[in-house]
Amino acid sequence: MSGNSIGEIFRITTFGESHGEMVGVVVDGCPAGLKIDLAFIQDELNRRRPGQSKITTQRDEKDKVQIVSGVFEGKSTGAPIAAMIHNQDQRSKDYAHIEGAFRPSHADFTYEKKYGHRDHRGGGRSSARETAARVIAGAIAKLLLKEFGIEIYAYVTKVGTIEMPADCKIDLKKIESTIVRCPDLKTAKKMIALIEEVQGRGDTVGGVVSASILGCPAGLGGPVFDKLHADLGKGMLSINAVKGFDIGSGFKGVELHGSEHNDLFEKKNGKIQTKTNHSGGIQGGISNGMDIEFNVAFKPVATIMQKQKSVNKKGKVVEVEGKGRHDPCVVPRAVPIVEAMAAIILADHLLRHRSSRLKMKE
Amino acid sequence: MSGNSIGEIFRITTFGESHGEMVGVVVDGCPAGLKIDLAFIQDELNRRRPGQSKITTQRDEKDKVQIVSGVFEGKSTGAPIAAMIHNQDQRSKDYAHIEGAFRPSHADFTYEKKYGHRDHRGGGRSSARETAARVIAGAIAKLLLKEFGIEIYAYVTKVGTIEMPADCKIDLKKIESTIVRCPDLKTAKKMIALIEEVQGRGDTVGGVVSASILGCPAGLGGPVFDKLHADLGKGMLSINAVKGFDIGSGFKGVELHGSEHNDLFEKKNGKIQTKTNHSGGIQGGISNGMDIEFNVAFKPVATIMQKQKSVNKKGKVVEVEGKGRHDPCVVPRAVPIVEAMAAIILADHLLRHRSSRLKMKE
Amino acid sequence: MSGNSIGEIFRITTFGESHGEMVGVVVDGCPAGLKIDLAFIQDELNRRRPGQSKITTQRDEKDKVQIVSGVFEGKSTGAPIAAMIHNQDQRSKDYAHIEGAFRPSHADFTYEKKYGHRDHRGGGRSSARETAARVIAGAIAKLLLKEFGIEIYAYVTKVGTIEMPADCKIDLKKIESTIVRCPDLKTAKKMIALIEEVQGRGDTVGGVVSASILGCPAGLGGPVFDKLHADLGKGMLSINAVKGFDIGSGFKGVELHGSEHNDLFEKKNGKIQTKTNHSGGIQGGISNGMDIEFNVAFKPVATIMQKQKSVNKKGKVVEVEGKGRHDPCVVPRAVPIVEAMAAIILADHLLRHRSSRLKMKE
Amino acid sequence: MSGNSIGEIFRITTFGESHGEMVGVVVDGCPAGLKIDLAFIQDELNRRRPGQSKITTQRDEKDKVQIVSGVFEGKSTGAPIAAMIHNQDQRSKDYAHIEGAFRPSHADFTYEKKYGHRDHRGGGRSSARETAARVIAGAIAKLLLKEFGIEIYAYVTKVGTIEMPADCKIDLKKIESTIVRCPDLKTAKKMIALIEEVQGRGDTVGGVVSASILGCPAGLGGPVFDKLHADLGKGMLSINAVKGFDIGSGFKGVELHGSEHNDLFEKKNGKIQTKTNHSGGIQGGISNGMDIEFNVAFKPVATIMQKQKSVNKKGKVVEVEGKGRHDPCVVPRAVPIVEAMAAIILADHLLRHRSSRLKMKE
Repeated sequence: MSGNSIGEIFRITTFGESHGEMVGVVVDGCPAGLKIDLAFIQDELNRRRPGQSKITTQRDEKDKVQIVSGVFEGKSTGAPIAAMIHNQDQRSKDYAHIEGAFRPSHADFTYEKKYGHRDHRGGGRSSARETAARVIAGAIAKLLLKEFGIEIYAYVTKVGTIEMPADCKIDLKKIESTIVRCPDLKTAKKMIALIEEVQGRGDTVGGVVSASILGCPAGLGGPVFDKLHADLGKGMLSINAVKGFDIGSGFKGVELHGSEHNDLFEKKNGKIQTKTNHSGGIQGGISNGMDIEFNVAFKPVATIMQKQKSVNKKGKVVEVEGKGRHDPCVVPRAVPIVEAMAAIILADHLLRHRSSRLKMKE
Repeated sequence: MSGNSIGEIFRITTFGESHGEMVGVVVDGCPAGLKIDLAFIQDELNRRRPGQSKITTQRDEKDKVQIVSGVFEGKSTGAPIAAMIHNQDQRSKDYAHIEGAFRPSHADFTYEKKYGHRDHRGGGRSSARETAARVIAGAIAKLLLKEFGIEIYAYVTKVGTIEMPADCKIDLKKIESTIVRCPDLKTAKKMIALIEEVQGRGDTVGGVVSASILGCPAGLGGPVFDKLHADLGKGMLSINAVKGFDIGSGFKGVELHGSEHNDLFEKKNGKIQTKTNHSGGIQGGISNGMDIEFNVAFKPVATIMQKQKSVNKKGKVVEVEGKGRHDPCVVPRAVPIVEAMAAIILADHLLRHRSSRLKMKE
Repeated sequence: MSGNSIGEIFRITTFGESHGEMVGVVVDGCPAGLKIDLAFIQDELNRRRPGQSKITTQRDEKDKVQIVSGVFEGKSTGAPIAAMIHNQDQRSKDYAHIEGAFRPSHADFTYEKKYGHRDHRGGGRSSARETAARVIAGAIAKLLLKEFGIEIYAYVTKVGTIEMPADCKIDLKKIESTIVRCPDLKTAKKMIALIEEVQGRGDTVGGVVSASILGCPAGLGGPVFDKLHADLGKGMLSINAVKGFDIGSGFKGVELHGSEHNDLFEKKNGKIQTKTNHSGGIQGGISNGMDIEFNVAFKPVATIMQKQKSVNKKGKVVEVEGKGRHDPCVVPRAVPIVEAMAAIILADHLLRHRSSRLKMKE
Repeated sequence: MSGNSIGEIFRITTFGESHGEMVGVVVDGCPAGLKIDLAFIQDELNRRRPGQSKITTQRDEKDKVQIVSGVFEGKSTGAPIAAMIHNQDQRSKDYAHIEGAFRPSHADFTYEKKYGHRDHRGGGRSSARETAARVIAGAIAKLLLKEFGIEIYAYVTKVGTIEMPADCKIDLKKIESTIVRCPDLKTAKKMIALIEEVQGRGDTVGGVVSASILGCPAGLGGPVFDKLHADLGKGMLSINAVKGFDIGSGFKGVELHGSEHNDLFEKKNGKIQTKTNHSGGIQGGISNGMDIEFNVAFKPVATIMQKQKSVNKKGKVVEVEGKGRHDPCVVPRAVPIVEAMAAIILADHLLRHRSSRLKMKE
């Protein structure tokens, strides 16, 4: 209830602050018998890792994952899986200057208002460092989903005003081939140039991460409040810097007529499917077997290397300026985080679905 | 866990099908001592009511609310408040023809896949009729919020391609002055004309509902997964036909730079606030005391009065055509539903906030 | 969180007050495809019904159940099943005299302290009338369990100081053959005589209900906090007037040595089982396939037909005396309630178990 | 839902196995601003520590607690508090011989049945070592309760057949003055002698821990399923080796009449209270301001230093015999665990109570 857990059956709880000893996660509800591939989990963390390219923060965090429970002889036992990353290369002194000041569009002011007492070092609990714990949990979720043929891909489709062409066919294999993680290589080049330009000015820029979930069987998702896309939306909106989520035709679809927007059913290769996919793979909150497609809007990073006016706790005017090492654009590193949250939500609904019918078969 | 409840402390559970005996709701966790104004609840239902204007469905449902528990001598007792609306004017025979067919972009197919067995009459549980129960709960939440000075307003800002001008100042008092619930009367007129035109062709069109929450104190919202806008987003995405949600600058904000997008703090009239509100009233998942502003995208209604190809349970090609009485555009009637969901989420976070600090004062 | 719901997957929420319009329940999470036998549910209610014999309250409540959602063509659809009983034969005036007084060992004082505002008529929400809603939910749970071969029997083993002999073999078929529901007919006779004698003096007496769960497969129950007997215990302790719960050897087992108490495993008829059952069918919180056996202690009913000193809201001394029609001993009517709560807890754990392993088969 | 968490607002999740790297706990929902006294937490752990006296296991575990998040400058921040104890002095080889065998009255068989795959070393997750994590969380809960004047004391009242006299006045200050933690020194002496005698035979014996909660305000506890004593009961029954729980008059009270059992209200020193306390401080599930009094039954420890017949995974007869170092009687070390669970449950209900009324004051 305090907001540090998500999921009903596959349920994760994260802990740890940016400049504390570690960030960690407890994954409760992972079924017994799943092979836990530690190298895969580490690879996923490496995709999120700071310092991975010239367009991300230059902080050099190794982010080595350690699993301390719930796994025996390489397989999950059904007990909670606790995993952690010890923090390194913290420069808490980078934050000494802002101890009393409220950085614009950060959570300093709101944490102060909520809790009265806060760990100001590096944003403490509100830091995006917390998402490293989500990536660990997401990697475990991906291993579970893989057993059922479900795969999740996220990629960058927009940075500032530079957008992938609408008619561009997405080649999922190319996502990791550029540092910006846009599968259209032409657009990727422009995005990288823009980020570098913005970074040069000490400024930042926003972007959009899109995702495709392949192989999801029909039937996942709750009927009313826990619609699959509602839970995916919550998962995405809970990621730092996210300001929007839409699925299928999304905000663009509002301009269409029902006669254009409706996805007509057909039987193809012995399987009932839809000719179009404006629904984005979910109808009435439940997956229909088509690819699940959604978009996530990230605002420009709030920490900029420019002087800004603000106030401190006492309401006095102060000047703040980003120190330390920050991302000029969050979307390249957000790709594995979006995938992780999608995997966590889906793993949960996969298990929840097992109670839908009197007798289940999988 | 089965998806029919939402909220942690202020928690509602809805029940009932479109063509069953009633739809109802149990509101658990409403604090004792709240005056329950039945006339207000009925008024809210009337705003959602079918048949209220020429641009909504012509079904004539009185939707009279009845409260059967949790209220004594006009005030909440702390016990669960159960309320219900008996269904009337059901024409189940309007649905006999689609018993075996999967209507395009409805939940027929996905419910069949999930449950194996379903109540096909009027969409059963997947019908938007379920939202009447939410409006009751939302009205109770509004009464609670009002005690703490919080008010919620939703209104239509887009229908098809007709959009309220971006620079238009919103006069909240004008929302209810047109049947389309757009506070800009010029735009409202065009929207109504468009809806009538679309309706004439037996077609439907989508739209956007926006919302403003006034008077929300700083400090509401959970820190990590239960960010206030993540929970608002989930609430909105759980409404039938919703395909997108964004807050503050939202999808448009991705094009901005940090130096433009950051909301600078200032002290004004003795209170710390921000000069701009790109954050939409929430920073780091917690309300900052500014107005909370968000948008909700609704797809065009799936039921159209035109023939469409589909398949039935056996995969055979069939033709379906909307019968009965349906909305050509859902957004005018969605306004009170968006408000209701926002109120339910906020009421929950208002109560959850009471546990944030060692000693609380309100 | 407000205490009116129990269960995680098979989750019930009750509502309604003793002297309100109805008591009801929403059963969420019942799998689709279960045959809902309304006559069976009514039969279960009849076993709990007031006025059923000379040793129960003489209030004549028909308690006719009505199901209003979640069932279509006789089978559950996966949607919430809402059911209700309209209250009849209420004599609120029987309670007018105690409006301001705190009845000894009732919840009048504590509700006043918690909520400030309460429905005093017949105890309102704290009345045992609420358990009628549990019996409905329990009957649905029993129907579900029956599909998996699980049966639940409760029976009276003690009334006041009259106890079934320890070595008495329990013939479950005889439970319903006497009005006191003790399967040992000799003891039953003495119990009935005792209750009549106590009733004659306007007094009341306590008792013990014991239960046997047959056919429960090994593997149900959570490992740490949600141990199967911990959840059964909570369920039982939540029943009005219950003051104790023990399982297997229980309080008596503390006197034994490990060498006597340990249940040795053996293979019999191709199945691993234990020679004795001091564990009561649960080891480490998880069912082991043996019969689950537990006891529930009920205090003497607090409402007596004798004058007692008490105080009112203002702390002034008042005299209270039971009016109306009350049970001299609660255990005969508690039998179906104990069964209902056991069924609800087990149905939940049966469904929860489906997520324990990577691949499930039932 | 997977059973490793308890509490709604003050919610703890434990992780770790007996012979894994560590056992740990995440305490989520502890309000911000609480002084976290690390020395006190360590003291509580020392009370539970193995090897503390001649009548407990001689395993020498230092059990040094480390807090890694949620605390800043000595005070809680509102973020999850994660704490852990690194395991030491594990002798996994003590368990090699039982890898395939099911120890009588342990959880080996049931874990195998539930999960298919288990960590057999030292009982893995089912080991009582897990309760060390509960003691940490309980110590934090105690610090919170202390701020509101609530204190919890547990003590041993029975070992085997040796029981504290019923009329013995309990001097809480004497609990820690003997190694058996029975406040009646005469009885304590007999208990110690009995435990030593049993231990000499390689056998074990059961016992009862009782608890008194002082200073609990009236009003805590949920009304229906989450009755305060139901949640206390669940907490206690979730402790390893517990077979029973009763409150107030408990199992003995069933023999009384209502006229004897009812607790009459009186006004004394300006406060409404009851003359007797058969209710054990809770009426209708809600605390009434009197001391909360309950008992917890512990079975004899299952690991005995004697040969016992059992079967292995394949159903073949094997002989098992306890190796390693085990407790002859669990109750002396169970005292701090009972207190911890009581503190966790109460802390949760203290915070939950804050939402009971429209306007709260504490």
